[in-house]
Amino acid sequence: MTRRIELAVLPAEALAIDAGAYIVVDQLRATTNIATLLAAGMDEVLVVDDIERARSEAKQRGALLCGEVGGFPPPGFDRGNSPIEAEEAARQGGTAVLFTSNGTRALCSLAGRGPTFAGALVNAGAVSRAASGYDTVAVVCAGTGYGLRFSQDDFAAGAEIVRRLAERTGAEPGDAARLALSAIAGGPPAVEHLVRTSSHARGLAAAGFGPDIDYALRVDRWQVVPAVVACGEGWALLRPGRAHAAAG
Amino acid sequence: MTRRIELAVLPAEALAIDAGAYIVVDQLRATTNIATLLAAGMDEVLVVDDIERARSEAKQRGALLCGEVGGFPPPGFDRGNSPIEAEEAARQGGTAVLFTSNGTRALCSLAGRGPTFAGALVNAGAVSRAASGYDTVAVVCAGTGYGLRFSQDDFAAGAEIVRRLAERTGAEPGDAARLALSAIAGGPPAVEHLVRTSSHARGLAAAGFGPDIDYALRVDRWQVVPAVVACGEGWALLRPGRAHAAAG
Repeated sequence: MTRRIELAVLPAEALAIDAGAYIVVDQLRATTNIATLLAAGMDEVLVVDDIERARSEAKQRGALLCGEVGGFPPPGFDRGNSPIEAEEAARQGGTAVLFTSNGTRALCSLAGRGPTFAGALVNAGAVSRAASGYDTVAVVCAGTGYGLRFSQDDFAAGAEIVRRLAERTGAEPGDAARLALSAIAGGPPAVEHLVRTSSHARGLAAAGFGPDIDYALRVDRWQVVPAVVACGEGWALLRPGRAHAAAG
Repeated sequence: MTRRIELAVLPAEALAIDAGAYIVVDQLRATTNIATLLAAGMDEVLVVDDIERARSEAKQRGALLCGEVGGFPPPGFDRGNSPIEAEEAARQGGTAVLFTSNGTRALCSLAGRGPTFAGALVNAGAVSRAASGYDTVAVVCAGTGYGLRFSQDDFAAGAEIVRRLAERTGAEPGDAARLALSAIAGGPPAVEHLVRTSSHARGLAAAGFGPDIDYALRVDRWQVVPAVVACGEGWALLRPGRAHAAAG
């Protein structure tokens, strides 16, 4: 049972936390997308942080190639980074290759330290349940700008995951987790407000991706727990993880 | 006039921000102490992150030696890290050497990038006024655990400095600055609550330093603007800076 919950405001902070499990949150849109791909039919998602590697891995595996540059699918990609597209495309099953910049780095650097999951509002309940079997849990904001800058949408979704975990376990929150709980004390409208007023959301809305933001706000749409099962420099492989849930 | 305000949640984030000026905040207690030392009579404060260097610099300069290990003054030190002691001791003038772990690193790494000031609640008005002449200002939370971990007391004091700067200039806040403004929307009681409920404050209170926390909450006690005038690996020299204030 979880006794301590930490919220890492940036991936760099997570490296200073000795946790039993890590939940990486890249709310708009990578971890929302990963959860959706795995919940809607994909067997696995390979996330990579290099576009050429994404192309070659997808070709080699006959995989669905998803991702974005500046919000839009690069030439030769099957899909962008939209969870709406992901839900439909995932029905074919198999492997998806996802090209992202922020989330991948965090997933890879943490997976070497302990069990690492991908979380977002769409699977907040499932991922907090799965993590509740670990003594110390770190919820990690993936951030923006290659994970170097704080992003309010990740903080908001991370706060909701912290809240579920704290309610379930009575665990003691660290400083940032306590701040997060107070930031969403107003309930679901407060969470939604923080997501919608983030720089990231405003940029996506201006680029025409408003429906993706709405989709990403569908709390608990999925019961999936994407878990890193293998990783290396610049890549991480995720599959739906249910084993750890039994520990909760 | 400031057009953009960023709050760096950790020193590492500040390195990714191209700002015209940086305000480092180590509310409990280093920047409160620096502001107090300079406002109450010291000509300069040399902050260093190595205890032996602190001892040798103080001896060589005939300086007042202040600092802490685990909250208490180490053997041979004249004073601890208490702003209450600092106010009294500063009357002698001259140089103070301050041994700290978190704030020094941030002050040194940023001073090479642009004008860098030390801020806290005790000089929130003065430091925000001085910074208002720069186009982009980054308020930097010094954090704890060698600056790797988020600390709620720094966030609270940083939020108050952001608020002053935003009110004065109408500058656009970045994500963390916006979150900070909403966290202290309740006014002074909200700022105080965030400081007092931080892990850092609770540790200090348990060690008998409750009066230092009260002192550090005396908003605008001083009009001083401590500015880094020289720095190197592991050290930074601060003097009362007034030149930049004229730019505002």
